[in-house]
Amino acid sequence: MPEIMANTNNGNYPIHIKTGILRKLGQIVSASIKGKKAFVVTDENVASLYLSEAVKSLESSGLKVFSCTVPAGESSKSLEMLSLLYEQFYHAGISRSDAVVALGGGVVGDLSGFAAASYLRGCALIQVPTTLLAQVDSSIGGKTGIDLPFGKNLVGAFYQPKAVVIDPQVLSTLPRNRMSEGMAEVIKYGCIRDEMLFESIEKGLFDLEWILERCVRIKTTVVQNDEFDTGERMLLNFGHTVGHAIEKVAGYSNITHGEAVAIGMVFAARMGILEGITPEGTDVRIRAVLEKWSLPVSTGLDKSAIFESMLSDKKRLSGKHFYVFLQSIGQAVVYPIEKDTLKDHFDQVFDNQ
Amino acid sequence: MPEIMANTNNGNYPIHIKTGILRKLGQIVSASIKGKKAFVVTDENVASLYLSEAVKSLESSGLKVFSCTVPAGESSKSLEMLSLLYEQFYHAGISRSDAVVALGGGVVGDLSGFAAASYLRGCALIQVPTTLLAQVDSSIGGKTGIDLPFGKNLVGAFYQPKAVVIDPQVLSTLPRNRMSEGMAEVIKYGCIRDEMLFESIEKGLFDLEWILERCVRIKTTVVQNDEFDTGERMLLNFGHTVGHAIEKVAGYSNITHGEAVAIGMVFAARMGILEGITPEGTDVRIRAVLEKWSLPVSTGLDKSAIFESMLSDKKRLSGKHFYVFLQSIGQAVVYPIEKDTLKDHFDQVFDNQ
Repeated sequence: MPEIMANTNNGNYPIHIKTGILRKLGQIVSASIKGKKAFVVTDENVASLYLSEAVKSLESSGLKVFSCTVPAGESSKSLEMLSLLYEQFYHAGISRSDAVVALGGGVVGDLSGFAAASYLRGCALIQVPTTLLAQVDSSIGGKTGIDLPFGKNLVGAFYQPKAVVIDPQVLSTLPRNRMSEGMAEVIKYGCIRDEMLFESIEKGLFDLEWILERCVRIKTTVVQNDEFDTGERMLLNFGHTVGHAIEKVAGYSNITHGEAVAIGMVFAARMGILEGITPEGTDVRIRAVLEKWSLPVSTGLDKSAIFESMLSDKKRLSGKHFYVFLQSIGQAVVYPIEKDTLKDHFDQVFDNQ
Repeated sequence: MPEIMANTNNGNYPIHIKTGILRKLGQIVSASIKGKKAFVVTDENVASLYLSEAVKSLESSGLKVFSCTVPAGESSKSLEMLSLLYEQFYHAGISRSDAVVALGGGVVGDLSGFAAASYLRGCALIQVPTTLLAQVDSSIGGKTGIDLPFGKNLVGAFYQPKAVVIDPQVLSTLPRNRMSEGMAEVIKYGCIRDEMLFESIEKGLFDLEWILERCVRIKTTVVQNDEFDTGERMLLNFGHTVGHAIEKVAGYSNITHGEAVAIGMVFAARMGILEGITPEGTDVRIRAVLEKWSLPVSTGLDKSAIFESMLSDKKRLSGKHFYVFLQSIGQAVVYPIEKDTLKDHFDQVFDNQ
């Protein structure tokens, strides 16, 4: 089984990737904590599919198990839901050495991750991502958080789990559009760091476990070098500058993160070609592989609204303007660029979609 | 000026101790952050005394200053107040590199410390403690947090400030009973690590700046060796096992933390004598110095209620029973003890108060 060790400032943790490993959740949790209780947080969709299997495995390892099922969807990443979890942790008598098990996609991972990070100033956290997007992205790297009424992910913590348990088998029940959402990030990993990964997706010849391992290795390596998101992690934002802007302008409920990033990657490739840093034809390859996964590659939203939103994006363009471009498929760079040049390139790409 | 460097897992920060240094707050904050904004959190009592001076100093260093004044008292350590701070941070446009300045006692430091720790997954935090208790204890060590309706400090983060600014002059306006509250902790530092400190308090001969420096050095050293509170920090709990139990049984609003710890230290000294580890007469010296500061040294609360509460104290007696005893004034040890022996000693001390 590929077991990847993630090394962080505050200790190391294993990432288990294996088909069927959900059945061994209890063993992994028991081995990761000193306590005797596990509190599973999940959502309505995942609960009906995998909660009983997870609980059974945890109980068979001698753990006392509690659970809470939150509504599916981004609206659960709220202070109200956080407060509800704290209350339930309290009534379950959860201690620092007990486990909070995040069984679900990004919303469940972010919400319960922050609850675990902050309850008693930090309980043990086990991430069990059940969407492709969460498996290759949000469950790795220690970012947890909730939304405020004014914006997404405004409150949270950098908090590393004790273990991550990735079972490719759970993806068999994932709707096709959510699979595509995750594939957008998989394709991104290929673009920024792994030509072989990209080529295998182009050919449609791949094994899911192998893909997960490649992606997780890239994410852990990048995060390891930049745990607190001040430098190298920016490479992971390839396609995300335009992507985030599109999500914001479209309204988060009208487009998935993966769809927005797909469009963003096509933009970034073309803008890189205009800048002379990305080889001609790169955009065509990226576009083809995205379309194979039914992902959009252009947008009908308002041009200036997108550009304005790009400029206000706090993480990417604070003061200086940096942009992630490809030098080739498999090799991304963070590149300083003038605002006016950025606008020219963006306009030209937008007008020629 | 005594400037002490605190070393932590996630970087080092200076602790400035000097009479009148509040006037240099702006310089210190500017030098500690990359941003250009400071958001001061304070309470009603402190606002009328020191807010304008703090704001003036911050503004004169070119910072754009915002502030929020919360009601004085423990009830401000709530999710509601935290939510209010998030909202105000958002409207002030606070970024990760801007400063949240905690100007106040332990409540303000804990609340705004956790707000700073969690907003945008961590903004810069400057602690400006204005009570003796906060200056020698809660502002150092990185513990931040809020209460839930079911219990104190149930939610929070270990989060280190960028700097701590301790001005002994602000203590001139502190009511006598709050000064005594802090002196209980000062006396504790003497008991556990610093005989000279203890003796100077016995003689009533001391300089406040000198006392602050001694206490802060002890706290930073102990915390440095045990940032996440899993071992040596326990020494700081001398007098706190019985003390916390008394606070809980009395109801937190009916006794100060310092008063409870004062009684707890007398108990711990006498129980140590019964155990044969603490020299005879130690309790008499501790009692005398506490009484000089008008601190209580005995309790009329229910004996079994206190003992039950001691046993349920999550941090101190989880599984194994450890207790902090003095081998002499200035030297504390963490000591394993049987529950029955603990009860015998406790009962005997209680009955002979």
